[in-house]
Amino acid sequence: MSVQFADIEQAALRLRGVANATPLHTSRTVNALTGASVFFKCENFQRVGAFKFRGAYNALSQFTPEQRKRGVLTYSSGNHAQAIALAGQLLDIPRLIVMPQDAPPVKLAATRGYGAEVILYDKHKQTRETLAESLAQERGMTVIPPYDHPHIVAGQGTAALELCRAQDVDVVLAPCGGGGLLSGTALAAKGVLGRVRVVGVEPALADDATRSFRTGRLCSVHNPDTIADGARTPSLGALTFELVRRHVDDMVTVTEKQIVDGMLFLWQRMKLVVEPTGALAFAALHSGVLKFPGQRVGVLLSGGNADFSALKHLL
Amino acid sequence: MSVQFADIEQAALRLRGVANATPLHTSRTVNALTGASVFFKCENFQRVGAFKFRGAYNALSQFTPEQRKRGVLTYSSGNHAQAIALAGQLLDIPRLIVMPQDAPPVKLAATRGYGAEVILYDKHKQTRETLAESLAQERGMTVIPPYDHPHIVAGQGTAALELCRAQDVDVVLAPCGGGGLLSGTALAAKGVLGRVRVVGVEPALADDATRSFRTGRLCSVHNPDTIADGARTPSLGALTFELVRRHVDDMVTVTEKQIVDGMLFLWQRMKLVVEPTGALAFAALHSGVLKFPGQRVGVLLSGGNADFSALKHLL
Repeated sequence: MSVQFADIEQAALRLRGVANATPLHTSRTVNALTGASVFFKCENFQRVGAFKFRGAYNALSQFTPEQRKRGVLTYSSGNHAQAIALAGQLLDIPRLIVMPQDAPPVKLAATRGYGAEVILYDKHKQTRETLAESLAQERGMTVIPPYDHPHIVAGQGTAALELCRAQDVDVVLAPCGGGGLLSGTALAAKGVLGRVRVVGVEPALADDATRSFRTGRLCSVHNPDTIADGARTPSLGALTFELVRRHVDDMVTVTEKQIVDGMLFLWQRMKLVVEPTGALAFAALHSGVLKFPGQRVGVLLSGGNADFSALKHLL
Repeated sequence: MSVQFADIEQAALRLRGVANATPLHTSRTVNALTGASVFFKCENFQRVGAFKFRGAYNALSQFTPEQRKRGVLTYSSGNHAQAIALAGQLLDIPRLIVMPQDAPPVKLAATRGYGAEVILYDKHKQTRETLAESLAQERGMTVIPPYDHPHIVAGQGTAALELCRAQDVDVVLAPCGGGGLLSGTALAAKGVLGRVRVVGVEPALADDATRSFRTGRLCSVHNPDTIADGARTPSLGALTFELVRRHVDDMVTVTEKQIVDGMLFLWQRMKLVVEPTGALAFAALHSGVLKFPGQRVGVLLSGGNADFSALKHLL
């Protein structure tokens, strides 16, 4: 059940003509500030506004006819929910999404907008995994979790596959929540370019993956209060932890202020609407936590579903 | 002193490798909402964050050695100021910019950031043209006004030139302030595609160009209180009025609410930071003021220098 580079190449074929081949943006200002040549992979322009569509569609398009009929169930605080909702709509698969009561309203509305059934839960009383498993059993649905699944990892890796096929880089920076994007990115980047470094970036308030990476033991956090809601995951999964350990070169953390500053820079200077989690990787570069003078740096901007009503006080 | 299609082609050669060849974005959601195929020309990704760089660089790059030494003077409430400031910096030409005291702070700071000298004036006490002329005489500088100049019009036309060379369209929508972009767009679109309609969009609160277009007499407005600060110009210029009358097919207006709704849609759904003036053309389509079912529509998003601190109450 592990993931190989060939799985990412296969995923890219499944996604061709369905997912957006998102553009690379550059900025003379960023290059001057960092002394590097920076290439931004704009997954904020992906369908549903985030890279999550890649993994979701890759997973659902491999369902058997029986699985397609019974439907898919998932749990997600946001973008994965929308991604499963849309991918299932395109493939005509019934969808049930378990979401926390406090999920960003913009993400709740979008998920319902794609025609998925949504069940809300109280994350202080229930674990989403338990609820999801019992609902799935009841309805005979297949569970596609948000990151700890080989088809999800392979799909997420196609963003870095496109980046590294389009542009030779020395290092790739990716945000890390549950590690699906990060581990797919590492596999893809090394598959295409060989000698490339891959660094994951986490909020300091949700530094479980960084601690797991450093200690070699799977660490967790409990409902971390970071603005980067996509990185509020309690820990890496069994699969993503193994892949991150094996293929990622380093992990770093950024503060809440560094995340916000990076995000506002992307909005104001690069005219890109990026959500807090989507700005994580750039925040490490913008703040100087990571420096790559003279190097070519790929930065994954993972999504753009910013909840403006929640963020307006930052402006 | 009029402008021909060949002038736009020449301007494009001067801008090659200097201005950004900005991308075209599309949106399945917009196409579904409008029943049209819409192509967004993203001048928010242009240098200085707006199309204005095109005209400014085209004008300054034609200065004689003597003019280059003496410098350029202009007056502008915003993006043209930044554009002249940067273009002059690239060409090593001294720059003096006359700006209103109430110009958006983000635009003032950016203009100074490009190393231009800024002189502020009180628009209730002075006209900027009079102040600019006396300063220019004093210092021997060449005045490059924000729109009523053939080199400016030709430069601005290169945005639509790129759009129409990349994508066959039936109609092009452009915002209208002083008419530099709109008249350049009409010349360029018709030069490339022949039978294409060009429609200008203005705020209803600053409908001088629409009235001028309809009546055949140059009409004006006095300090219109529209959120679209790039369209607060009192009237078309002598040159742009002539070009708009001759080459533009229609003019329409949109309300302040339609501008804001269009802008927020671009931010939230298309992940594009666009300023209010930049959202004018799309606002006409998004609101249903203009409908083009079954047609291919080019929409100029003219700039992205949104003043978030002024706009955050909208979110």
